[in-house]
Amino acid sequence: MSPTRTVELEGHIIDSGTMGRCFSLVMDLGGSFEVEEFEIGRHKHEESYCRLAVSADSEPELREIVHELHQIGATLSDPADATLERAPEDGVVPVDFYSTTNHPTAVRYEGEWLAVENVEMDCALVVEPGDSGDDAAPRAYTKVLNAVEEGDLIVTGDTGIRVDPPERPRDGENTFGFMQGGVSSERPSESLIGEIADAIAETKADGGNVLAVCGPAVVHSGGAGHLAELVREGYVDAISAGNGFAVHDIERDLYGTSLGMDVETLEHPRKGHKHHIYTISEISRQGGIEQAVENGAIQSGVMYECVTNDVPYVLAGSIRDDGPLPDTITDSIEAQNAIREQAHDADLVIMLATLLHSVAVGNCLPSTTKLVCVDINPSTVTQLMDRGSAQAIGMVSDIGTFLPMLADELADAE
Amino acid sequence: MSPTRTVELEGHIIDSGTMGRCFSLVMDLGGSFEVEEFEIGRHKHEESYCRLAVSADSEPELREIVHELHQIGATLSDPADATLERAPEDGVVPVDFYSTTNHPTAVRYEGEWLAVENVEMDCALVVEPGDSGDDAAPRAYTKVLNAVEEGDLIVTGDTGIRVDPPERPRDGENTFGFMQGGVSSERPSESLIGEIADAIAETKADGGNVLAVCGPAVVHSGGAGHLAELVREGYVDAISAGNGFAVHDIERDLYGTSLGMDVETLEHPRKGHKHHIYTISEISRQGGIEQAVENGAIQSGVMYECVTNDVPYVLAGSIRDDGPLPDTITDSIEAQNAIREQAHDADLVIMLATLLHSVAVGNCLPSTTKLVCVDINPSTVTQLMDRGSAQAIGMVSDIGTFLPMLADELADAE
Amino acid sequence: MSPTRTVELEGHIIDSGTMGRCFSLVMDLGGSFEVEEFEIGRHKHEESYCRLAVSADSEPELREIVHELHQIGATLSDPADATLERAPEDGVVPVDFYSTTNHPTAVRYEGEWLAVENVEMDCALVVEPGDSGDDAAPRAYTKVLNAVEEGDLIVTGDTGIRVDPPERPRDGENTFGFMQGGVSSERPSESLIGEIADAIAETKADGGNVLAVCGPAVVHSGGAGHLAELVREGYVDAISAGNGFAVHDIERDLYGTSLGMDVETLEHPRKGHKHHIYTISEISRQGGIEQAVENGAIQSGVMYECVTNDVPYVLAGSIRDDGPLPDTITDSIEAQNAIREQAHDADLVIMLATLLHSVAVGNCLPSTTKLVCVDINPSTVTQLMDRGSAQAIGMVSDIGTFLPMLADELADAE
Amino acid sequence: MSPTRTVELEGHIIDSGTMGRCFSLVMDLGGSFEVEEFEIGRHKHEESYCRLAVSADSEPELREIVHELHQIGATLSDPADATLERAPEDGVVPVDFYSTTNHPTAVRYEGEWLAVENVEMDCALVVEPGDSGDDAAPRAYTKVLNAVEEGDLIVTGDTGIRVDPPERPRDGENTFGFMQGGVSSERPSESLIGEIADAIAETKADGGNVLAVCGPAVVHSGGAGHLAELVREGYVDAISAGNGFAVHDIERDLYGTSLGMDVETLEHPRKGHKHHIYTISEISRQGGIEQAVENGAIQSGVMYECVTNDVPYVLAGSIRDDGPLPDTITDSIEAQNAIREQAHDADLVIMLATLLHSVAVGNCLPSTTKLVCVDINPSTVTQLMDRGSAQAIGMVSDIGTFLPMLADELADAE
Repeated sequence: MSPTRTVELEGHIIDSGTMGRCFSLVMDLGGSFEVEEFEIGRHKHEESYCRLAVSADSEPELREIVHELHQIGATLSDPADATLERAPEDGVVPVDFYSTTNHPTAVRYEGEWLAVENVEMDCALVVEPGDSGDDAAPRAYTKVLNAVEEGDLIVTGDTGIRVDPPERPRDGENTFGFMQGGVSSERPSESLIGEIADAIAETKADGGNVLAVCGPAVVHSGGAGHLAELVREGYVDAISAGNGFAVHDIERDLYGTSLGMDVETLEHPRKGHKHHIYTISEISRQGGIEQAVENGAIQSGVMYECVTNDVPYVLAGSIRDDGPLPDTITDSIEAQNAIREQAHDADLVIMLATLLHSVAVGNCLPSTTKLVCVDINPSTVTQLMDRGSAQAIGMVSDIGTFLPMLADELADAE
Repeated sequence: MSPTRTVELEGHIIDSGTMGRCFSLVMDLGGSFEVEEFEIGRHKHEESYCRLAVSADSEPELREIVHELHQIGATLSDPADATLERAPEDGVVPVDFYSTTNHPTAVRYEGEWLAVENVEMDCALVVEPGDSGDDAAPRAYTKVLNAVEEGDLIVTGDTGIRVDPPERPRDGENTFGFMQGGVSSERPSESLIGEIADAIAETKADGGNVLAVCGPAVVHSGGAGHLAELVREGYVDAISAGNGFAVHDIERDLYGTSLGMDVETLEHPRKGHKHHIYTISEISRQGGIEQAVENGAIQSGVMYECVTNDVPYVLAGSIRDDGPLPDTITDSIEAQNAIREQAHDADLVIMLATLLHSVAVGNCLPSTTKLVCVDINPSTVTQLMDRGSAQAIGMVSDIGTFLPMLADELADAE
Repeated sequence: MSPTRTVELEGHIIDSGTMGRCFSLVMDLGGSFEVEEFEIGRHKHEESYCRLAVSADSEPELREIVHELHQIGATLSDPADATLERAPEDGVVPVDFYSTTNHPTAVRYEGEWLAVENVEMDCALVVEPGDSGDDAAPRAYTKVLNAVEEGDLIVTGDTGIRVDPPERPRDGENTFGFMQGGVSSERPSESLIGEIADAIAETKADGGNVLAVCGPAVVHSGGAGHLAELVREGYVDAISAGNGFAVHDIERDLYGTSLGMDVETLEHPRKGHKHHIYTISEISRQGGIEQAVENGAIQSGVMYECVTNDVPYVLAGSIRDDGPLPDTITDSIEAQNAIREQAHDADLVIMLATLLHSVAVGNCLPSTTKLVCVDINPSTVTQLMDRGSAQAIGMVSDIGTFLPMLADELADAE
Repeated sequence: MSPTRTVELEGHIIDSGTMGRCFSLVMDLGGSFEVEEFEIGRHKHEESYCRLAVSADSEPELREIVHELHQIGATLSDPADATLERAPEDGVVPVDFYSTTNHPTAVRYEGEWLAVENVEMDCALVVEPGDSGDDAAPRAYTKVLNAVEEGDLIVTGDTGIRVDPPERPRDGENTFGFMQGGVSSERPSESLIGEIADAIAETKADGGNVLAVCGPAVVHSGGAGHLAELVREGYVDAISAGNGFAVHDIERDLYGTSLGMDVETLEHPRKGHKHHIYTISEISRQGGIEQAVENGAIQSGVMYECVTNDVPYVLAGSIRDDGPLPDTITDSIEAQNAIREQAHDADLVIMLATLLHSVAVGNCLPSTTKLVCVDINPSTVTQLMDRGSAQAIGMVSDIGTFLPMLADELADAE
């Protein structure tokens, strides 16, 4: 008799396509299934339920099938505990380690389901057994490979893991997510900016945290003043950017130029192309951004508002940086850790005209965080939207016209 | 009691997502449903069957729901004949006319299902009753709006129409169609060109017809010689292009340049930027392309091979044309009609570096024709792949390197 | 002794690079030169003068050199009349015909310099001798090849032609033209829109004529209402577009959607993807756009404002059109003629998110017409800016945010 | 009397546009000039000479003008020594420091012109006085700001500096550089690849050093095998890349996939999207790439050939890295230093489908290094070509078709 396991599906599994994907997957992997129970949700908010007996020719094949079913949200009717193995040395995981998705995940440990903390893609899963002495409860959380320490209890195999991918919002219910099936510049820009303003205002009203990820084009395109306004008004709780963004934002304050062009008159003053390097040397002389603000050397702009309003920022270094500023974190692992913290704290992330920093932030986001991505390049928007957020708005637009209109919308809403 | 109708779904309706879409749609439109029968295909090639009783609050609402279910492949268990109304004047359709999809379609007329001829998107459906006298059978076919004649019997409403959307090939079975969910330049180019060569060779082996749609970049990028080879070797049965393509192809023969650049030495000869206009004036003097080939004025290139090997071509005019050549069809309706004929004859269409002509051809294609689209611009490829062919390969590539590698692959395959 | 000819250069020939190009060209073509006289403009507005004796090994080589010098603005000190030859048949030019540039040009006829009318790239030059009987003066004008009639007096060779390329504005004097050396989305958007608004306002204040060339993305992106406002306020004197633009503009009025998406709520109503074809069938039923406005069937939008405010429009057909509307000119030569007239009348052309129609208009423009080009795709902007206008602003932006901000700027300026 | 200084221009100053730019600049900055001597090169290889007396209203204005003239190649007839000032602390330069161009530069020190070593954009200029005791000659070299040490003798102001921008090659002499004025995909690909192969072969024949800068798309597009061949055959002397490139190159060896897609069959094996993270964990287990090759764990690919053929590589870290591999340099300043060394050693740099790493390398290149840049995205090519190499070929192409054709050309050439 061929080995069999029973799995369950629950939720909007038909119209979300989950059930179809499960059936497909079993058949593609050479297994077969019997539908033991099937209840269909009859109306919009009713969930469906399906119980399947899945069989395969051998136990390893069945394990493979069940593993894949997990990834898309099926759960075993009769689960076992997860298997744990100790990391042999720092930065080295056991061979068969479980590599995480970015969906909400639970691990079964001593018969209990532990919700995984700090959900993030492509990490190892660490279980901390807790301590009966001081009643500390057991915990499970993700660790990036480079942070794994010798002796960490790492989950291996697929047993005892439950993944719960967010269901896509039903068509028409929600602007977020309606981008599925293509990102295009041919959509109504003003209305879309209105929806984004609403999402930011709602997040703030709910006590949520908004993270803005910013590229230098925010400054070059003349949008920095409007972003500074959003920081000052409290719509942005944290900034994630690179050295270049900060340099050009400060160049604009010191010289009125960005990349050497006057952002008001559009003229190119002589020596303008040296302004960014003069800016870096000046801030180095001052000892850093915060000191420069305190000394009165910087008097406006996004970085100025961050310092003045206690909005924390991370400036992550890159090999293309000039300088860099003393505030830039030059080690990429250290910078990722700082970005990771920002990402985990955020309820809404708004990505403004940067691919590198948006990918870095996106890598750390669970699939449940709301995402807004604005870039003039459609392939940047597509690439960022593909990262699997369940609620995402992508907009192909000019950041220099987007930001003033967004600031207007938010000011009007007050 | 609320009005109810019974509809049926058949095929790979679960893993293709059809069933999910149907359930979703009924609920979104405010209806409800009861699953009366449901049989699941247990393995890869087994089809499923589902019979639904669909209800709505009013008859008009129910009609709307049933109409939409039609579009995605559901059929009424108990169908009625289609409603027909005469066109009031030339080019004018009845108000409630049925506007077609690009899927295989049948119309119920006097209790019989007539397969619709020349399936094409956004057309009117005309029924020709047949003539009992000479036993001509009744027919149904599409007509573009501008071709509708006073008195044509036009289908109105949704009753008596059956649409049969092709199912997406199952994942992994087929290169065609695997592009769903994103077109990217980051895929293995050589292997993909191999698959395209195989598809062309198979189509020819099956006695099929290959239509090449060509933009001027084919010539500018140095690919024209390789395309000419494909025409000469019999891999291409028809060419669809614009005036510019033909002009540059002939310019290359007459002057060795394309857009004024020597395609071998990469030099820009003086007056090179006038070569295209000299080419047009020369072919006008000769009386057209065919005469120019016969007179020995043109001695190589794609147009030369077409004339020499009796491969028919359509050169469609555009408002950006210089000249145009005497062979160019300047009226867009007339040109569309010529393109439509090419499109309906084709079994495989290969679109080479042109958006305008590819859209024009794509507009006329049924969803069952195989499609290959190659362009250096990812958004062009995305836009063309979105047109709904069930079997499509999109490739973001340089046409000037693609064509020599394709010609090599086909030569090797012989 | 080698044949020699004397040519003159005048203007800002050094800082515009003209003199360098001339020296370069003579040497590249194997000739030599002697600078006979050279006066340098010492300050900003003083012009320079250079007289060169150019020699070559043979008369044909010298002719070639002198021809090329012409194209970039040199004039013969001792010019002869232009050579004229009759066109042998309709649409056929003499073999050695002179193909025009888009720069201001003069032809020497019976010792007089005739300014060429309707300057346009890649045309034939026709001389009309005038009639001593009724004192009609001789004229010279361009004709596209397809309009040449048997017996037309066509200029051949290069003798007796003077070309006067506009000098590039000096750096820093003018926003127009400052785009040289690259089009980028990384420039201050608001400031740039301000400059464009100023240019439009100035053109209108000087009694000039503004032509807007519009793609369907104007409607899809939600910008149509703002463009309609510009038409109503008198900032736009003519519209050049295609069938698709008009269809979607009217679809938006009839259904509130564009391409099937509601431009306010961003929802996709059922059957939305059929709205454009219903729109076409409705306007066909009405007998055309003007009748539809008069019947009250169309009540807002760009086309509505055009009809109501007597702003003329050209809708040029294309092979990708649905329908088309009865107002669309389907023959490309006829459409080009209509576009040509618009182009020749315009003092400022603003190209909004369309490549096809912008190229068609651009082909007909003399190099002295001011040009503004806005598109989200940088390569579209680059391609249009390359056409040789001496005064051009290119902007990579989202047309749906650009138009409301432009309308605001113009309203504020009043 | 207004202050006056005499400057000289020498070389192909007219057809390269240098003289025009100088005249322009003096006038734009409010100065005036007298041409004291002017000799024109009469034929192709003869150089011109121009001596100008430049005046301005005040000494500071004159200094500004002379400074700008320097930047574009003018030299003072009567120069003074450069001004030197000590750096006040580590990483801090004197306020008026001279920020370098990427052109060959000389500094006047004690009456002698010292050629600046390691020419690079946006650096400080350090003079090392030499030591009379052991006869060490004085030296001048660039230092990036973050490397400046307290007490370094830094050049300030503009006195005593001579910049020698390379002249653009004359039109038609050379494929390198012919890209000026636009990068387009519409050029003959095969012929261009032939020119690139010739440039590589010539560089190697001259004993030169070829640096390849590689993005992950080299692997995804199936080009890695061909690049590995170039490394094995000795055409590539160094590799500059990121963690992702190395991971995917090794993934392809270990699993046959890249980004989870099988590069031969185009299939997506189950768990394919986890292969890159498994690859990282495996190489970490092995202790690094070199050990993995030695242990036989890696058996083919670019990294394998590098280790086997002693071709050095730099893997620079980034905040979007997974892992990273133990070989990746995570500190961006340290990584820049490693890249800087590669860049200074290179005679020809070939940039393959990466923006980030190409910019990083490009930042360190003098304007005299030959440059080839291949990318499918035209704006990437434009951006990289804008960095000021005097000899550059840009090609918009598919890296997956480019590399096999390049490898073929080089194999044929042998």
